[in-house]
Amino acid sequence: MEQDTGTLPPKKTFSEWYNELLWRAEIMDVRYPVKGLYVWYPHGFAMRRAVYGILREIMDREHKEALFPLLIPATEFMKEAEHIKGFEDEVYWVTRGGLSDLDIPLALRPTSETAIYPMYALWIRSHADLPLKIYQVVNSFRYETKHTRPLIRLREITSFKEAHTVHATWEEAEEQVRNAIVLYREFYERLCVPVLVSRRPDWDKFPGADYTIAVDTVMPDGKTLQIGTAHHLGDHFSRTFQIQFEDLSGEQKFAQQTCYGISERSIAALISIHGDDRGLVLPPCVAPVQIVVVPVIVGKRREEILSHAASLAQDLSGVGYRIEVDTRDLRPGAKYYYWEMRGVPLRLEIGPRDIDARAVIAVTRDGEKSALRRENLADQVREVYARFESRLRAKAKERIEAQISRVQSSSDIPAAMETGVAIIPWCGEIGCAEALARLSGGDVLGLLTDSGRVGNKEEQCIICGKPAAPALLGRAY
Amino acid sequence: MEQDTGTLPPKKTFSEWYNELLWRAEIMDVRYPVKGLYVWYPHGFAMRRAVYGILREIMDREHKEALFPLLIPATEFMKEAEHIKGFEDEVYWVTRGGLSDLDIPLALRPTSETAIYPMYALWIRSHADLPLKIYQVVNSFRYETKHTRPLIRLREITSFKEAHTVHATWEEAEEQVRNAIVLYREFYERLCVPVLVSRRPDWDKFPGADYTIAVDTVMPDGKTLQIGTAHHLGDHFSRTFQIQFEDLSGEQKFAQQTCYGISERSIAALISIHGDDRGLVLPPCVAPVQIVVVPVIVGKRREEILSHAASLAQDLSGVGYRIEVDTRDLRPGAKYYYWEMRGVPLRLEIGPRDIDARAVIAVTRDGEKSALRRENLADQVREVYARFESRLRAKAKERIEAQISRVQSSSDIPAAMETGVAIIPWCGEIGCAEALARLSGGDVLGLLTDSGRVGNKEEQCIICGKPAAPALLGRAY
Repeated sequence: MEQDTGTLPPKKTFSEWYNELLWRAEIMDVRYPVKGLYVWYPHGFAMRRAVYGILREIMDREHKEALFPLLIPATEFMKEAEHIKGFEDEVYWVTRGGLSDLDIPLALRPTSETAIYPMYALWIRSHADLPLKIYQVVNSFRYETKHTRPLIRLREITSFKEAHTVHATWEEAEEQVRNAIVLYREFYERLCVPVLVSRRPDWDKFPGADYTIAVDTVMPDGKTLQIGTAHHLGDHFSRTFQIQFEDLSGEQKFAQQTCYGISERSIAALISIHGDDRGLVLPPCVAPVQIVVVPVIVGKRREEILSHAASLAQDLSGVGYRIEVDTRDLRPGAKYYYWEMRGVPLRLEIGPRDIDARAVIAVTRDGEKSALRRENLADQVREVYARFESRLRAKAKERIEAQISRVQSSSDIPAAMETGVAIIPWCGEIGCAEALARLSGGDVLGLLTDSGRVGNKEEQCIICGKPAAPALLGRAY
Repeated sequence: MEQDTGTLPPKKTFSEWYNELLWRAEIMDVRYPVKGLYVWYPHGFAMRRAVYGILREIMDREHKEALFPLLIPATEFMKEAEHIKGFEDEVYWVTRGGLSDLDIPLALRPTSETAIYPMYALWIRSHADLPLKIYQVVNSFRYETKHTRPLIRLREITSFKEAHTVHATWEEAEEQVRNAIVLYREFYERLCVPVLVSRRPDWDKFPGADYTIAVDTVMPDGKTLQIGTAHHLGDHFSRTFQIQFEDLSGEQKFAQQTCYGISERSIAALISIHGDDRGLVLPPCVAPVQIVVVPVIVGKRREEILSHAASLAQDLSGVGYRIEVDTRDLRPGAKYYYWEMRGVPLRLEIGPRDIDARAVIAVTRDGEKSALRRENLADQVREVYARFESRLRAKAKERIEAQISRVQSSSDIPAAMETGVAIIPWCGEIGCAEALARLSGGDVLGLLTDSGRVGNKEEQCIICGKPAAPALLGRAY
């Protein structure tokens, strides 16, 4: 691959930093000859495998993975009026096969309700078939006309994890939406990514849903990024696609449904939140290389040092760590730069003095330096990792909390938006939301659902003074 | 899901058996409303995960996984004349985005040379960048006008593993093609699927390749199924896409390339070769459920039996087995039927007498019955599995060898084709291949490359009498 020299722009120029990081850390190549389509470099893809490995592990506990076709016939796609209205501007259409026109155009899925639900109608017969909980991880497509951005706003979403569940009652579906958010919180907790959960305003919900709960994070530039959504679909789709079941009393009923999804925006959040001026910073669980061993070679003990480095790496890979030994003919500083850029959480340096002392120098990606004993090394690495992860989590949380302002008066809104997002009392009315949007240059993202943030104090809408609850106001990606 | 009662057609009616097995064993649902597109049921998908887990493990040893876009602009796709000619009848074209026509139509990749190689042209600068070995696992598309068939001939190939390598010399690329076949042999060995390897005739090679090596298997109906190919691309594509490197002497050279692929046809072969009249038969390494525990419940010791079954399952899942305990309120016979249909390699039955004897009854999917001791159960399971796998492998090999006839005279061809495939001496000329096709109702698939089958005896073409080598003659799927 091309050699990476030169430095990263500072993270405080977030947009430039992000674009440069993507190629310098070998995550994505943006030079593919179609706007909005990007190439995953091997290093980026290895990170994606680790991130989606965690997501699958969490989903597998109570869902089954399946796979439905990409191509949706126009006849199915057009069935649900609200749904199609929400997507018609951004659907790609296949109209030709070989040298001839297709009888029925085929949509590239923007999301898979209309591909999956005709099958659910065949699969579900009785209450004994419920609940049904299935997910898939697929590529999906949006003909974006806005400015595209790798991992964030793309035309081929390569890693869309979408779950689709079916239930007997509206209440069970509601419970499932809550449940989905619990799973998503766990997922982001493991990525050390802090989240804010809110219920989107009705005019912003998923096309065809009863309501939408969204998971957002706050990016370093103070803008919010939606990194997960869960929708209660009620029986809108089950009526359209005839998903019915016989209940205990023998009556035919329409099923209640939910769907919820996460895309590679999860990776955009991960890299943006933890990265620093020297490159990527990754929690060990998602780092393609978790440990790099750098032999510090001094003259005549070269072979001895290399053999110690190799045996050390073997011990650690034996207990499951993803590890590399960097034996390239480069200065140690150049190696440090290289692996720091790629987010390796831990560097082990081993030189003649370390061998004599039966020790190894450990340096975490955020600069904690310690001497580890050669004995029980894996256990000590686990402790170093645990401290590193809690610092990552604390630092991310602290930064984001500092960007959240509690605002009680509309005159404070502009200042709050300068730093990031605002939590404001809002009555739920569209008129007041529009006023807040004008004042802030952002949008009311929804009423917060996190009890820790909501509290139980009575509040008044800062626009109209009516009873209100805390809402999230932000400029969204 | 729908309840499966009724029985499978006998395997000797292979086509009916295959179609019924797909839904009864919950592999694929063929009722998706577009011809040639199918739905992976959760059970089928879990098998796919296991199969592709093995494939990734093998590939990862010397390749890196990456991911390139699905959509290829017509401008890139049309660049290599031979290549486009080979695919133009079967490419799907996206021509509309939202409500407007696209300026440049986008092809859904039938294969990714034209998506990947413009990027390789950017990535490769010098001999130090070579060899480059990358693969991806993606969906790809063919507008098939022939009869479609799940896993075998489809319009969305959901699981195309394609590798693309770049080398400094033609010889290194040739070595890589050989290497690819070694990897593919290992992959199929682990699936217990016997293969035949041959060099496709020039008129049958991949569009744009110097030559193509193919991996075929023989299906139960005697037809061959191509389940892997490796292509030496020479510098055809590197000249088109300007993939150049500076060699050691400072000279700019065009790179030499290979590509090789495996699709979900690997799964078609797996299930067709091992399945029997009672359903799916799977080697343990790819079985979604590797062991089912069936408690044989007799009156008053119910709780004790269930608790023994659970603790036994816990022990085995603790050492990594995928295990289910079937506690459904069904007769044991119905449970056996259910799990046999789904290919579970091992059933453990536990009843009161077994508890008293500190034993458990083990029955493999092919009927080997033994009593295992409760102590060191995992080790005994490993031994049972080893015997089961070698029987599977031997049985598949024996069946396929019986379907291969060595033919030395053209009058024997029709009888050979009745049972399966023929190995015949062939001179390599197209005229003789056409004569063989007419005589057989099949095709010359290529000259065999397996030294065990080739031998070193001089042979004469059975059509023209000129010097010849053993070729594979078969009716291909």
